[in-house]
Amino acid sequence: MNKTDGSDGVLYLGIDGGGSKCRAVLVNGYNNVLGEGVSGPANPLRGMDVATASVLDAAQQALEQASLPQSALSQLIVGAGLAGVNLPYYYRQFMQWQHPFAALHLTTDLHIACLGAHGGEDGAVIICGTGSCGLASVNGQLLEIGGHGFPFGDNGSGAWFGLQMLHHVLRSLDGLAPATIMTAALQQAVGQQSTLDLAAYFMNASPTTYAKYAPLVFRCAVAGDITARQIVEQGAAYINEIAQRLLQLQPSRLSLIGGVSEQLQPYLSDDIRAVIRPALQLPEFGAVSFARVHQSEKKSIKP
Amino acid sequence: MNKTDGSDGVLYLGIDGGGSKCRAVLVNGYNNVLGEGVSGPANPLRGMDVATASVLDAAQQALEQASLPQSALSQLIVGAGLAGVNLPYYYRQFMQWQHPFAALHLTTDLHIACLGAHGGEDGAVIICGTGSCGLASVNGQLLEIGGHGFPFGDNGSGAWFGLQMLHHVLRSLDGLAPATIMTAALQQAVGQQSTLDLAAYFMNASPTTYAKYAPLVFRCAVAGDITARQIVEQGAAYINEIAQRLLQLQPSRLSLIGGVSEQLQPYLSDDIRAVIRPALQLPEFGAVSFARVHQSEKKSIKP
Repeated sequence: MNKTDGSDGVLYLGIDGGGSKCRAVLVNGYNNVLGEGVSGPANPLRGMDVATASVLDAAQQALEQASLPQSALSQLIVGAGLAGVNLPYYYRQFMQWQHPFAALHLTTDLHIACLGAHGGEDGAVIICGTGSCGLASVNGQLLEIGGHGFPFGDNGSGAWFGLQMLHHVLRSLDGLAPATIMTAALQQAVGQQSTLDLAAYFMNASPTTYAKYAPLVFRCAVAGDITARQIVEQGAAYINEIAQRLLQLQPSRLSLIGGVSEQLQPYLSDDIRAVIRPALQLPEFGAVSFARVHQSEKKSIKP
Repeated sequence: MNKTDGSDGVLYLGIDGGGSKCRAVLVNGYNNVLGEGVSGPANPLRGMDVATASVLDAAQQALEQASLPQSALSQLIVGAGLAGVNLPYYYRQFMQWQHPFAALHLTTDLHIACLGAHGGEDGAVIICGTGSCGLASVNGQLLEIGGHGFPFGDNGSGAWFGLQMLHHVLRSLDGLAPATIMTAALQQAVGQQSTLDLAAYFMNASPTTYAKYAPLVFRCAVAGDITARQIVEQGAAYINEIAQRLLQLQPSRLSLIGGVSEQLQPYLSDDIRAVIRPALQLPEFGAVSFARVHQSEKKSIKP
């Protein structure tokens, strides 16, 4: 074994696999970063072939950056947090994968985000990104809230903010509500003026497309747009609800992460804002923590 | 020309082309029905090939039912109201179609629904089906409201009611809101109990799938479910707004049509309900009226 890998030669690979990107970090037994990798979507809902290819791609990049041979794949203790594996069918699919690693410990992207946010310890996390969801992990108990998908779930997420704005802008263009700052702002951002062209632009749009326009709602709210402000407050109310539910498990820490979290935070209720703590690590390091804990459990069961 | 076709031998074909079905009715100069046809989707957004094939299929069925040869296609004065041709791009696409008819007069499915509802005369119509939209046609002026598409538009439609119900049921299963009658009702109707399975069932669902469960919201509202009642009232408020906007053009009649319209009507405001009149004819007969008027205009311009 390569002596540069750490005192005991152990190599951990942490994988954060989302719907659009897969990030990998390779660390040694001392948690020193040896290499990183970024690849495409690793959500099995997009297809198992695509997801496993993304995981392998990111892993290979990390090995290359660490100047380690590709044959070292077989030494890696992998922790992977993947979107979609909260669905039992996809979890089973992934567990049946004939992977090239020494071990693969699988959980959800939400779980590793939580582990990362609290340095591998117990805590709760709310993701306000393209989608929205929350998880509390306390004394081995996991409570997952939201994250059911767009458009019926994911309230208070980037996609949800974009959708609400579009809805109000179309209403204003139909003469059903007064035009607000959002109307011209969205027309300009999208580069489409008419109701028909705006609707055509968003026809079959992905959550990512809607989420792209979420910052506009916050900007309009700050600029004094009452309707935008109402949308932001409605979104914040949803996130408050998720937070209240998670706090019932009495986690020692609560972190808010994701692309919309910073803009949303000032609109959350005072009692929630008072308990929010910064995330300590990125999700891929949470995946390493997950691998480390589950590998040692495995060892203690089968000595 | 075949003497049975009408005194002057003229044959009109009315086409009502929607996103899932295309209906045709063949009438003579006296408006006597000679034949009918039903085929697949005729919305050019599903592809021009599919749409034109559906129109031809329905037309051929109608000729066959009328015991007329397929060569009679070239005698037909066709009026077609098609979903999607409100978008200029698809209107132009359809106008460039090398169709086999004597003439093709094209407008939207909403316009022929309005013409049908008022026996070819001026008036206004609101469709509450899978989607929702409204049109007023008064003294040559057309005002179209809503119908921008799901999920950002189409409020108060069947798809919107289904989506709202699913959203509230998932919230109740997450413990963010109390369970109501809708929770068990939707679980039973879909045949899925858990949050994960319900969410998976509706993942990437079409508006038609959501709309399938709309009647459940109304049943739960009648059974005393306060949340269901709030959803119904919110949907009704949207339709009230569309109606108010259309009535600004002072149409002599207003009709409410579509799969959800009957259940929704009792929840509309009194002033709107007071002016609602029954639809007189089906949309495909509105398409015949449209063809008749536009054909005679054409004749008077080019004698």
